[in-house]
Amino acid sequence: MNRYTFAILVHNRFGVLNRVTSMFRRRRFNIDSLTVSETETADYSRITAVFDGDDASKQQLMQQLYKLPDVLVVRELDREATVNSELLLIKLANHEREKRNDILDAAGAFEAKIMEYSRDAIILQLVGDTQLIDNFIDLMRDYEILESCRTGVISLSRGVSTMKDGIA
Amino acid sequence: MNRYTFAILVHNRFGVLNRVTSMFRRRRFNIDSLTVSETETADYSRITAVFDGDDASKQQLMQQLYKLPDVLVVRELDREATVNSELLLIKLANHEREKRNDILDAAGAFEAKIMEYSRDAIILQLVGDTQLIDNFIDLMRDYEILESCRTGVISLSRGVSTMKDGIA
Repeated sequence: MNRYTFAILVHNRFGVLNRVTSMFRRRRFNIDSLTVSETETADYSRITAVFDGDDASKQQLMQQLYKLPDVLVVRELDREATVNSELLLIKLANHEREKRNDILDAAGAFEAKIMEYSRDAIILQLVGDTQLIDNFIDLMRDYEILESCRTGVISLSRGVSTMKDGIA
Repeated sequence: MNRYTFAILVHNRFGVLNRVTSMFRRRRFNIDSLTVSETETADYSRITAVFDGDDASKQQLMQQLYKLPDVLVVRELDREATVNSELLLIKLANHEREKRNDILDAAGAFEAKIMEYSRDAIILQLVGDTQLIDNFIDLMRDYEILESCRTGVISLSRGVSTMKDGIA
């Protein structure tokens, strides 16, 4: 099993997200993360999906996605040729001074932003690639993680080419 | 029509995302943005969905979501009581010095991070609430937006309470 990421450009029409998630389900792919949102124009939305599978079934999935109404372009993410980021919000207990100092030191080292700071809880915001976010969460396991929420990765290709160029 | 945001805590099991998006589709809600990703434990995923609708049908939707297998907690986002952020990647043409200067000035003012800078293109990364991201994209329409991708909003409640507290 490998982990793959697809960027999918779709017409922003009713039901398209459900058609795409149904295709992943039918093909038995487990989705690790998914984001969908409008682009700079209301006409198009962009879906970024991270999933586990093997190479052959991934190729089939891409072909099947292209057959869906309103799916315009499907690109597999090439980590070398793209800028990739995701966003994390994480809430930590703020009970002990020593732990707090460690948390704030780590926040400084990772350039995390302090979004909330109270007697009881600290909320940190962190942006980076998936590995960096994973590493930060792992580091915070030494303290008391109350809850966390992450967006999953989004990506843009480097250079001037765009997904719209791929519209047939 | 109003715009609502639901945070949905689910068991991280096969097909749960599809069941949730199917429910939105069946109830005829158009999803503006959606993110789903694992939390700090692999047991749970968190779905954040922004959608348009009216108050009565939103209440019904919440009740229906609770009836789905693997849906544990559904919370409507209260902007006062939560920290909300989303992430934008935006690629702009880098042809003219004057436009470039304007773009870099705006990037500085919004504390956007320059992720790529070449003769042809600039990729900026920006984090903020939905209004800030909307404002920045709108400002960039004066230049040449090649493409953009945003995550949609994620949120955590302020204070020590967590969504897990709501598991029945």
